[in-house]
Amino acid sequence: MSRILRTEPSQVFSKAVEYHGFVYTQGLVPTNPDADIRAQVANVLGQIDEVLELHGTDTTRLLQAQIWLADISDRAALNEIWSAWLPEGQAPARALVQAVLADPRWRVEIMVTACK
Amino acid sequence: MSRILRTEPSQVFSKAVEYHGFVYTQGLVPTNPDADIRAQVANVLGQIDEVLELHGTDTTRLLQAQIWLADISDRAALNEIWSAWLPEGQAPARALVQAVLADPRWRVEIMVTACK
Amino acid sequence: MSRILRTEPSQVFSKAVEYHGFVYTQGLVPTNPDADIRAQVANVLGQIDEVLELHGTDTTRLLQAQIWLADISDRAALNEIWSAWLPEGQAPARALVQAVLADPRWRVEIMVTACK
Repeated sequence: MSRILRTEPSQVFSKAVEYHGFVYTQGLVPTNPDADIRAQVANVLGQIDEVLELHGTDTTRLLQAQIWLADISDRAALNEIWSAWLPEGQAPARALVQAVLADPRWRVEIMVTACK
Repeated sequence: MSRILRTEPSQVFSKAVEYHGFVYTQGLVPTNPDADIRAQVANVLGQIDEVLELHGTDTTRLLQAQIWLADISDRAALNEIWSAWLPEGQAPARALVQAVLADPRWRVEIMVTACK
Repeated sequence: MSRILRTEPSQVFSKAVEYHGFVYTQGLVPTNPDADIRAQVANVLGQIDEVLELHGTDTTRLLQAQIWLADISDRAALNEIWSAWLPEGQAPARALVQAVLADPRWRVEIMVTACK
């Protein structure tokens, strides 16, 4: 058995879990829930940067991403911030759908799988 | 090529698939669809226990979970049963959104990735 | 660090990403958006065939699938095409929910994880 590393485990979820060179993040949500979509996306991507760094990796090593938007019409705004954030030629596989999120103020939730 | 192990494969999906020390479960749904949210969640978590055991692992080895609720306002009830079920300090990374599920009586669907 | 291989990386997402024997596809969507549900599903499954082949694998090596339907009542039609496509006894773990997709004409989006 390889070791499992958990970042900020609560009794409900961990912020990230690492195993065998793979890093799985929580569905990260904005800590600035009253901001607009662009600022909420930037906030979540900043959290991803931090958690990847904690696990010794970065945005050049993203494998898969799932994105939920509270309103699918925010997709263009999301993509603008998202594509500026990604290193050139390093985009993960991605799925994007609309969903009702746990807090009605959240406009975006993003979960990624990365590797080291 | 490592061997792939499939539990209860139908022509539509397998209950779980194991490869290279990783175990992927189906999006598990309640077999007690007329019960309330707490009983439905407990039912699904019991199925996860069983399928993890079949693959030689358990709830201390959860990496990632996705949860869909038919009604996001059931989140507190879900978290109550979920957090009592998880071993202390071993929570997976998790994403939770609301979605219309295949059977209108289902209030919850849970899919996990674990390791051995 | 193992090498990451990306198929058709854009600045937003890659069609597939391979790492350490795992292949993650994008949430693939129909290129025939005005067709009916059966034809849209067949179109997406054909794209999965192509991308798996590019990564040296095939439908006998599917681990996990996520399917989003714009209308959950299309599930029977989806399952009909899906189950005919899968090799016998080789179904992946799967989750299926309804979601609003990015283009209102898309009736289905499918993302899979496979191995080599």
